[in-house]
Amino acid sequence: MHIRLINPNTTAGMTATIGEAAKRVAAPGTQTSASNPESGPVSIESHFDEAISAVGVLEEIMKGEREQVDAYIIACFGDPGLMAARELTRAPVIGIAEAAFHMATLISTRFSIVTTLGRTGIIAEHLLDNYGFSHHCRRVRAAEIPVLDLEDDSDAALVRIIDECKRARDEDNIGAIVLGCGGMADLTDTIAEAVGLPIVEGVTAAVKLSEALLGLGLGTSKHGDLAFPRSKTFTGSFAALSHQAFPLK
Amino acid sequence: MHIRLINPNTTAGMTATIGEAAKRVAAPGTQTSASNPESGPVSIESHFDEAISAVGVLEEIMKGEREQVDAYIIACFGDPGLMAARELTRAPVIGIAEAAFHMATLISTRFSIVTTLGRTGIIAEHLLDNYGFSHHCRRVRAAEIPVLDLEDDSDAALVRIIDECKRARDEDNIGAIVLGCGGMADLTDTIAEAVGLPIVEGVTAAVKLSEALLGLGLGTSKHGDLAFPRSKTFTGSFAALSHQAFPLK
Amino acid sequence: MHIRLINPNTTAGMTATIGEAAKRVAAPGTQTSASNPESGPVSIESHFDEAISAVGVLEEIMKGEREQVDAYIIACFGDPGLMAARELTRAPVIGIAEAAFHMATLISTRFSIVTTLGRTGIIAEHLLDNYGFSHHCRRVRAAEIPVLDLEDDSDAALVRIIDECKRARDEDNIGAIVLGCGGMADLTDTIAEAVGLPIVEGVTAAVKLSEALLGLGLGTSKHGDLAFPRSKTFTGSFAALSHQAFPLK
Amino acid sequence: MHIRLINPNTTAGMTATIGEAAKRVAAPGTQTSASNPESGPVSIESHFDEAISAVGVLEEIMKGEREQVDAYIIACFGDPGLMAARELTRAPVIGIAEAAFHMATLISTRFSIVTTLGRTGIIAEHLLDNYGFSHHCRRVRAAEIPVLDLEDDSDAALVRIIDECKRARDEDNIGAIVLGCGGMADLTDTIAEAVGLPIVEGVTAAVKLSEALLGLGLGTSKHGDLAFPRSKTFTGSFAALSHQAFPLK
Amino acid sequence: MHIRLINPNTTAGMTATIGEAAKRVAAPGTQTSASNPESGPVSIESHFDEAISAVGVLEEIMKGEREQVDAYIIACFGDPGLMAARELTRAPVIGIAEAAFHMATLISTRFSIVTTLGRTGIIAEHLLDNYGFSHHCRRVRAAEIPVLDLEDDSDAALVRIIDECKRARDEDNIGAIVLGCGGMADLTDTIAEAVGLPIVEGVTAAVKLSEALLGLGLGTSKHGDLAFPRSKTFTGSFAALSHQAFPLK
Amino acid sequence: MHIRLINPNTTAGMTATIGEAAKRVAAPGTQTSASNPESGPVSIESHFDEAISAVGVLEEIMKGEREQVDAYIIACFGDPGLMAARELTRAPVIGIAEAAFHMATLISTRFSIVTTLGRTGIIAEHLLDNYGFSHHCRRVRAAEIPVLDLEDDSDAALVRIIDECKRARDEDNIGAIVLGCGGMADLTDTIAEAVGLPIVEGVTAAVKLSEALLGLGLGTSKHGDLAFPRSKTFTGSFAALSHQAFPLK
Repeated sequence: MHIRLINPNTTAGMTATIGEAAKRVAAPGTQTSASNPESGPVSIESHFDEAISAVGVLEEIMKGEREQVDAYIIACFGDPGLMAARELTRAPVIGIAEAAFHMATLISTRFSIVTTLGRTGIIAEHLLDNYGFSHHCRRVRAAEIPVLDLEDDSDAALVRIIDECKRARDEDNIGAIVLGCGGMADLTDTIAEAVGLPIVEGVTAAVKLSEALLGLGLGTSKHGDLAFPRSKTFTGSFAALSHQAFPLK
Repeated sequence: MHIRLINPNTTAGMTATIGEAAKRVAAPGTQTSASNPESGPVSIESHFDEAISAVGVLEEIMKGEREQVDAYIIACFGDPGLMAARELTRAPVIGIAEAAFHMATLISTRFSIVTTLGRTGIIAEHLLDNYGFSHHCRRVRAAEIPVLDLEDDSDAALVRIIDECKRARDEDNIGAIVLGCGGMADLTDTIAEAVGLPIVEGVTAAVKLSEALLGLGLGTSKHGDLAFPRSKTFTGSFAALSHQAFPLK
Repeated sequence: MHIRLINPNTTAGMTATIGEAAKRVAAPGTQTSASNPESGPVSIESHFDEAISAVGVLEEIMKGEREQVDAYIIACFGDPGLMAARELTRAPVIGIAEAAFHMATLISTRFSIVTTLGRTGIIAEHLLDNYGFSHHCRRVRAAEIPVLDLEDDSDAALVRIIDECKRARDEDNIGAIVLGCGGMADLTDTIAEAVGLPIVEGVTAAVKLSEALLGLGLGTSKHGDLAFPRSKTFTGSFAALSHQAFPLK
Repeated sequence: MHIRLINPNTTAGMTATIGEAAKRVAAPGTQTSASNPESGPVSIESHFDEAISAVGVLEEIMKGEREQVDAYIIACFGDPGLMAARELTRAPVIGIAEAAFHMATLISTRFSIVTTLGRTGIIAEHLLDNYGFSHHCRRVRAAEIPVLDLEDDSDAALVRIIDECKRARDEDNIGAIVLGCGGMADLTDTIAEAVGLPIVEGVTAAVKLSEALLGLGLGTSKHGDLAFPRSKTFTGSFAALSHQAFPLK
Repeated sequence: MHIRLINPNTTAGMTATIGEAAKRVAAPGTQTSASNPESGPVSIESHFDEAISAVGVLEEIMKGEREQVDAYIIACFGDPGLMAARELTRAPVIGIAEAAFHMATLISTRFSIVTTLGRTGIIAEHLLDNYGFSHHCRRVRAAEIPVLDLEDDSDAALVRIIDECKRARDEDNIGAIVLGCGGMADLTDTIAEAVGLPIVEGVTAAVKLSEALLGLGLGTSKHGDLAFPRSKTFTGSFAALSHQAFPLK
Repeated sequence: MHIRLINPNTTAGMTATIGEAAKRVAAPGTQTSASNPESGPVSIESHFDEAISAVGVLEEIMKGEREQVDAYIIACFGDPGLMAARELTRAPVIGIAEAAFHMATLISTRFSIVTTLGRTGIIAEHLLDNYGFSHHCRRVRAAEIPVLDLEDDSDAALVRIIDECKRARDEDNIGAIVLGCGGMADLTDTIAEAVGLPIVEGVTAAVKLSEALLGLGLGTSKHGDLAFPRSKTFTGSFAALSHQAFPLK
């Protein structure tokens, strides 16, 4: 059972963080590997970054298909390219935002999200709506730290995240907190200890959900709107995608 | 890691079916056991049956707490007593309806439910609303078979379920089907083969979700509205619950 | 016309309070009586208390059916056992939470709820969702008093309730307040006078709604999903329910 | 206790029908009277008819205020002028659509509406949304009869209504039917007998809800957005409304 | 192309303000004219004012139909009489509240509304629900100024509006502000300059949306529920509407 | 005033069709131009095609920024890259799906969509949810024609579209139909004539909405979550985006 974690940004340090977080929670029989696209933004902090990163995510899925990967995780909290990725494979594909939301609703009736920058809050709001979890989330909060500070200035970032989590705990009438960035994957235990209520982190949640689906023999439905894309011509820098028949082998 | 499957009805044969289904999907390190209350209805086909069965579910949770069970599954599609059960323990508690809904949304954009009797469809509708999945479910369908026919007349029941699943597949514009009764847990593979699109079954889904939560170190939040119940007096036949301090040991 | 008020907890003093509140508003031709189960919690402050109390509520309904009661009120703000109770009878069955919500929407565009403990707020939130009134309720507030303080320390409790109602009045942009506990039934007038906007209390509201339905010749629909439960075997301490044919006589 | 039924259209025969239906269900101590505006459409079958009729409704409310009426019913299924009417008085004001919806949800989990013309279905849909009952209504159906046929060709109209109600019963998976026109108030019993499931009619429902509110001492909140209108100048044919101070005496 | 702006209140000064605002944004080929009913309230600050004003709006529409006006704008933020007005004509009819909401969602993900009096906030809330924009609006705010102060004490009014807009900008996590009164149409630029984020005003928005629809050859659908009203008898002061066949000529 | 229509697919014929449709409705003072990315799919019929096409859309926006284009239209019915595109510019950016939805709600109370392939229906459903128009759309229908058939086999395609539109008209209880593909832009009049109710087409709708916003001086808000993206490093084939400061010049 091989689960591939795709870090949609191109910062290798963050890919490593995500890969290690995955390994820590993977079951004995589970192989995990982490990758990131060659091309794309070093961090994802806007709709623009997200749209560009989706291309890399899809390339990583196609690479994984050729390597017969069994499940994929999109390890950025906006779940960039999720629907498109699902079309490319029979394997399960899980976004870390959805993973965290699902898990949070299983252990609490209401949760809050603590993310990096306020400007990305709208992305979380849209996902909550799409996935059906708007009523379960009391508030989307931001620690107002750029994503790469999680790498470059991690101590200061941790302090701000913990402070915001404590405000969530004390003001939001919640049972759990969802961490809103894949780059926080290595901070979960520290935050949980400092804050004292369940902290749900998406990378690790997605690993376990992938194992769960694989254990059930379930993968992305190819019946209906997530069927493989129709083969067709692509032009220019995307010409390599032309006449690609799916599933890839 | 010990997961207890609680069959809320008192039909031992169905408990065995559920227990075996759980074993089939459990990970190597996972111990599963199945139980049912001593007292309660032999099948659950109404709000009334469900309300009575909740008492037995809670007793089974308390029994499990004394045995230091690590996670609980409520193996009836109405998720009877779920919120109350969560209050009694730090362990995860998962209903099979919610488990199936969560899994179905991870592999398809829209699903339908095929349940036993039409009259219980409203229970599924209410759960979809509460959990946030109304928009993901196209239709709640019933094969119109009494629950115990799954035990007593299983061949005929299977035919009707498969027929209804095929209608769902052909008419509902869906990617997956959720089976709406714990008693169908042993039929999943047969149905999936006959119908040809992903069939999500709640008992097995809940086992994997329990493993997932335990693997993350997550349990029911004791912060806020799922905290342990306040200790108090109970009268009459429930006197044994009086002054019970939680967590149980 | 005989309306039975069922106090789902087993505190006789609260049953008396509820019974007296009912008498005060009952129409000349209306007979009211109040009862509580023999068995169950002395107060209801959690999902657990609520689940246990539902059994007693259903027993009281069955008792009432043998006495040919004409309508039932479930006098706890979580409306425990409401759907199940409706299955057992052709008579109307009304929960005090729903009764209060209905009435509040007829005299205001938006209301707030003032309940006892913050932890039970989630129960009110779920009911608002199920009944369709989420948009009409601005806020669920708690006076943070245990239910039995309404009996045992009623002066202090009253002060806290009035204070919270005043905050609702001044901060919530509302036209009415719903009292969130059956035990507040005798305080309505005092609170209304102190707060100066309409106070809607569920016990009294439910009495008048019961009279209204009975006056229209309307009772619980036996067509579809609220039909009488199917007769079946119950085991153990619930064996007396076995092979019970409904309607009871 | 004096309840005034306002028929928003100007067809005296329909006013009489409504008045008689009200009398049939009124409690012993309740005085009912029915009126209609002098000016307005003879039937209400469009948004346009409804907007014009609202003026007459408001005039009837003001007339009622001078006569010290205790409660008002707006006896047209679109509830025309309801919010405006509530501003003019401390008395309860109830629309027959909302009354029927409230009652239907107390005796069933899902209902359908059978109205006169298909083109007015959108009015019912908007009301269901505004009141919070969209999820409780399975379908809005029309018998496709002009409103005045209920007066002028009542036998044929009755047949069509019953036929449509039977279709609702057999196809819609419901527990009750709401009649979607005040002019059907005298047909309720006949329809109920023919169709065999609870038929909820708004005029009679509103009478009983008015009695209920009055019995509780509740009237329209004057706190917040339903407070009396600010006194001001009106011009032209509405000049008589100028500088009107409320409450009227 | 002739667009008629109907000011639903009868204050000529405000009609002039609205007419000038329209002229300022109208395209070269667009003729605009502004009118107000002869009869009705001098300002609209309640459901009551709104219901009365709807009659005048409809009369202005009928007058316009005889003059072969090409599109209509209802220039009061409650969009009074909108649905009824649409029934009377094949021309587009646009309310300024809906116009502003549509435009605001095209340039921002979330907006707030700044209206005149808090008591009319509920009207905006209802419109947001009906039009589908509740999720896009963070907050309905009021500057707490009577509508006519916009005419009579405009400097003080402007200060209060700008102050409230700044609070919205700083506290509401929004990208744009919708002005909630037609009487603010001449203040838009001043407010925008003072506040520094996009200010969407409904009168001007509606002019451009009218041009847009006319440019597409689109008008109010006469298929289905916005078809011309059925011809019928009206009585009393509305007798002139009797047997009116639509479209008017 | 220069409006750039971006055809997200790379089929020049379709770009021409879109460009001509735009010219037909553009106001005298409006300059329109149509472009398509060099790189990308020749048609967009899946989430995958859409994700890839978003890159080209964003490149076209950046190209437009350097040319000082005044407004942008994303001329594919899935509105690919819309949020990201808005971040890159102060100009308005409008998707043709949203444009059509907005216009349809201004002339009807309910509409249906007729799109190309059934598998893309989910994209329309998600957009309806995100934009707030789910309640206004009765049904998403597909003519089941591949997008390029609109170019290559346009007569047969037209017949199927008209047939599906007629079914929508006759079965869906609607007032208008939204065409669900930019490639249908030249067919609008023919379809409207054949079907006999208002047909709303997104390309033309978006042109007029762009003119409307520009006429109001409104552009994408740079306050909050649509602010220009933070400058940062991009790697690999996207390296040219590195350290790009916005706004572009």
